[in-house]
Amino acid sequence: MWALSALRRGRTLVRTFTSAYPKPYTVPEGNWGTNRAARLELAASFRGLDKLGLNEGVCNHLSVMVPRADGQGETMLVGHYGLHWQEVTASNLLEVDWTGQTVQGEGKADVTAACIHLGIRHIRPDAKVIMHTHQPYATALACMKDPRLLMVHQNSLRFYQNVAYDTSYTGFALALEEGKRLGRVLGEKNILFMGNHGVVSVAKTISMAFDNLYYLERAAMMQVLAAGMEKEVALIPDSECGPMLDAISDMLQEYADAHFYSNYRILRKSQPEFEL
Amino acid sequence: MWALSALRRGRTLVRTFTSAYPKPYTVPEGNWGTNRAARLELAASFRGLDKLGLNEGVCNHLSVMVPRADGQGETMLVGHYGLHWQEVTASNLLEVDWTGQTVQGEGKADVTAACIHLGIRHIRPDAKVIMHTHQPYATALACMKDPRLLMVHQNSLRFYQNVAYDTSYTGFALALEEGKRLGRVLGEKNILFMGNHGVVSVAKTISMAFDNLYYLERAAMMQVLAAGMEKEVALIPDSECGPMLDAISDMLQEYADAHFYSNYRILRKSQPEFEL
Amino acid sequence: MWALSALRRGRTLVRTFTSAYPKPYTVPEGNWGTNRAARLELAASFRGLDKLGLNEGVCNHLSVMVPRADGQGETMLVGHYGLHWQEVTASNLLEVDWTGQTVQGEGKADVTAACIHLGIRHIRPDAKVIMHTHQPYATALACMKDPRLLMVHQNSLRFYQNVAYDTSYTGFALALEEGKRLGRVLGEKNILFMGNHGVVSVAKTISMAFDNLYYLERAAMMQVLAAGMEKEVALIPDSECGPMLDAISDMLQEYADAHFYSNYRILRKSQPEFEL
Amino acid sequence: MWALSALRRGRTLVRTFTSAYPKPYTVPEGNWGTNRAARLELAASFRGLDKLGLNEGVCNHLSVMVPRADGQGETMLVGHYGLHWQEVTASNLLEVDWTGQTVQGEGKADVTAACIHLGIRHIRPDAKVIMHTHQPYATALACMKDPRLLMVHQNSLRFYQNVAYDTSYTGFALALEEGKRLGRVLGEKNILFMGNHGVVSVAKTISMAFDNLYYLERAAMMQVLAAGMEKEVALIPDSECGPMLDAISDMLQEYADAHFYSNYRILRKSQPEFEL
Repeated sequence: MWALSALRRGRTLVRTFTSAYPKPYTVPEGNWGTNRAARLELAASFRGLDKLGLNEGVCNHLSVMVPRADGQGETMLVGHYGLHWQEVTASNLLEVDWTGQTVQGEGKADVTAACIHLGIRHIRPDAKVIMHTHQPYATALACMKDPRLLMVHQNSLRFYQNVAYDTSYTGFALALEEGKRLGRVLGEKNILFMGNHGVVSVAKTISMAFDNLYYLERAAMMQVLAAGMEKEVALIPDSECGPMLDAISDMLQEYADAHFYSNYRILRKSQPEFEL
Repeated sequence: MWALSALRRGRTLVRTFTSAYPKPYTVPEGNWGTNRAARLELAASFRGLDKLGLNEGVCNHLSVMVPRADGQGETMLVGHYGLHWQEVTASNLLEVDWTGQTVQGEGKADVTAACIHLGIRHIRPDAKVIMHTHQPYATALACMKDPRLLMVHQNSLRFYQNVAYDTSYTGFALALEEGKRLGRVLGEKNILFMGNHGVVSVAKTISMAFDNLYYLERAAMMQVLAAGMEKEVALIPDSECGPMLDAISDMLQEYADAHFYSNYRILRKSQPEFEL
Repeated sequence: MWALSALRRGRTLVRTFTSAYPKPYTVPEGNWGTNRAARLELAASFRGLDKLGLNEGVCNHLSVMVPRADGQGETMLVGHYGLHWQEVTASNLLEVDWTGQTVQGEGKADVTAACIHLGIRHIRPDAKVIMHTHQPYATALACMKDPRLLMVHQNSLRFYQNVAYDTSYTGFALALEEGKRLGRVLGEKNILFMGNHGVVSVAKTISMAFDNLYYLERAAMMQVLAAGMEKEVALIPDSECGPMLDAISDMLQEYADAHFYSNYRILRKSQPEFEL
Repeated sequence: MWALSALRRGRTLVRTFTSAYPKPYTVPEGNWGTNRAARLELAASFRGLDKLGLNEGVCNHLSVMVPRADGQGETMLVGHYGLHWQEVTASNLLEVDWTGQTVQGEGKADVTAACIHLGIRHIRPDAKVIMHTHQPYATALACMKDPRLLMVHQNSLRFYQNVAYDTSYTGFALALEEGKRLGRVLGEKNILFMGNHGVVSVAKTISMAFDNLYYLERAAMMQVLAAGMEKEVALIPDSECGPMLDAISDMLQEYADAHFYSNYRILRKSQPEFEL
């Protein structure tokens, strides 16, 4: 009855969900199931981000490293270039190897997807999930000389000291070396603002990479709206951001699951074919 | 024939609807029915605010104090954390006690919901309905050093001298004490601007809390759009705001019912499962 | 072959549609048919403006003067207060007399509708159709100290010297006298900017009042977007606006019909019940 | 295995799709088939641009030069004036001759469509496809004294030195001479900003004209959002824009096909009647 006593005493609560959010799908144990789960979640991410208007044309890309279904090593799961995000399904995702060659599925990945995603992973092998978008508000900030995400809103806090800024746009990413360069700029952060281009979100789980893109756009929207009013914005004091973030950092994965899986279930109602 | 004669004479009319807006549902008399009516209206609020784009992720929360169906005291009706607002139904709402414990239904409320909503009610026991959102335009104002809602539009008038401003963001609301603090800042007002965070609407009825969030966002949109043009805004003179508000204050509950129940009926066509 | 020769010689064309746009409905000759046609078109206007996002809550109102179906004089056709605009149908529109009393249909009109619409018609008996909205961009302009619609775009031209500005907001319109005052401010113009409030469009046909609201919002959007960039806007030279407008003024009713009836047909596919 | 070795060596890749994007429809060889393919694609453009919100009323227009189905010369395929863009189908498109006369189909083209599109083609006979819209963000830029599209984003690059600016609005285009004038201002560029009016996109393929309008609006959106923040924008250095564009220019048609045909397939699901 921890929650109860904390409320009684007015103390800070630690969220004590006894069960994590149940996944809205079931997969068997083992490599096939792990591969399948990643396909379901990645397809839901393509559909969900499209519904939120965070993608652009058929250009942006999402990827996740997965064990091959037959257990023969690890591959990068990525979209088939040229599909509308509303066409992506669990089974039409491609698996590509470290050279960008398709090893599972029909078609090819976007070359820029291969270059950016594989390049970053050369530098950040822990970047299990990578999502790259040109989402409007965050990208607008990334086009400014001072592109910094300011601590204007509670949503900004989760990105405190967690955004890297690449201010040297070098053209379309058509070489692996460019992806590596981006990985080096990213460093240990989880968000990269790509100047004159867009953003990258890296995470250990699909739900977290998705959730971060969503809240990054909300935080950027607040910053852009506030900047348009030309009055002084009330920034959260820098000295308080760290402790405030610490207070919730243990909960963020759970929040991300709650949000992502709720979107997953909603998509299942309106676009059930994504699970095919 | 009051309306007629007033029109003839050009006098100020008092709206004289002989019947209040009929509720679009029927419930039996007594505790069960009162509880059921609150569940129907709160579920419609989740769905309606989602349709209007005033919510964020699965984060914001709506609550109402209701008699328990069996008549054993009063509980707080609130959303099950982790549900998409399009998934909320009358029957999956939770009832929690003053310690935040679920006493009816499966699952848990968001801890921040419990802290904010119960905390405010400690200070404002008349706050039967509380709605907390991060709606874009109003929240953008709440992120400014001078967050005041200005009297730029007829819609602003209903909030004249009725908004409290909390300019000291203290991090995620993880303790009951924080809710109490917010309640003290709110004082006798019905709207709270939470700096760097969002807004709270408190009211005696669900329709009024909903209607106020809707018109608050419209008023804030006007203010943000006007501020972006960098020219001088035409404020309604302060000396006239009070009398203007007095002239309509008796009608506001009726307006709110008209608006809210029309949304309710529309939702019933497209998402009828919310009444389950 | 006028069009042909004009193209050959590069001369200015006058649009020479041999047939006006066919109405997408048929009604019998006579009062009943005229009344019925107005009901169909007004219901389509409620639905169409709602789809375009130009209305607010259940507040704004549209009206048209029509002969009574039985030929016994003329009445004002107006919405039943409290209906969502998606609920309005040809048959649930109300007819009210010059005192605001309902003479056909169940329910009451909004008092502010009666005051504004009847009041304006006292002064402008030619105002067969009146539409009042709080559409976002035009209303934002109406909240500025200098609310003038500037000639920033081709769409602005149709309102050249055709907008009146009321800069003295007087509170909710709860008396017939207020409507008369608005009518006097409107004078001979067809558009009224109501300071801190919204806009009014008056016209001889429903299609024209609708089309003007649509293009007014587009013109205002251009002006607001341009003002937000804080650079100098390129205004169409004042001396040229008159001749430019003259060149198209004969075509505007035809343009309006084309636009309005295309919307009508589209609504019939998705919301066919509006014709009931 | 070029792609593979390039990734290994980190070198710049040239996209080497072995098969171009398959068209989502099949037509027989010959004039009838070519004519039919253009009808399918132009109808999909009307529907797709409407879905993206880039059109205005029933005003803007899209055209393509096609061989007549019977092989008797070439005609301009254009929309039937007065149809909602959601009503356009492959078979209700009109064919008009160089004098603007309808030679295939029922109805008439908009006179301004005939004047603008035929006039431009007098000057630019290579302008197989012409699309004219009043899309919001690009049009807002076109209303500024300095309407230049700046190199603020990767999307801007594809328009580097490829936009012509007409800063002398002359009223509604009601004469062929006006179209010729616009063609002369356009010169060898593929995009025309029409001051106080809108934009024109000319291309050799429908997919490219469509894709350019889409990315032009995205680029303009970034520029408008950035301008609203009143801070310094980070422009891509002028000296680098040329080489950057060169690096991708060979791929743009392929990108355009990928994007356009994905939209085509999506439309086929929700509005399959456009292919009739």
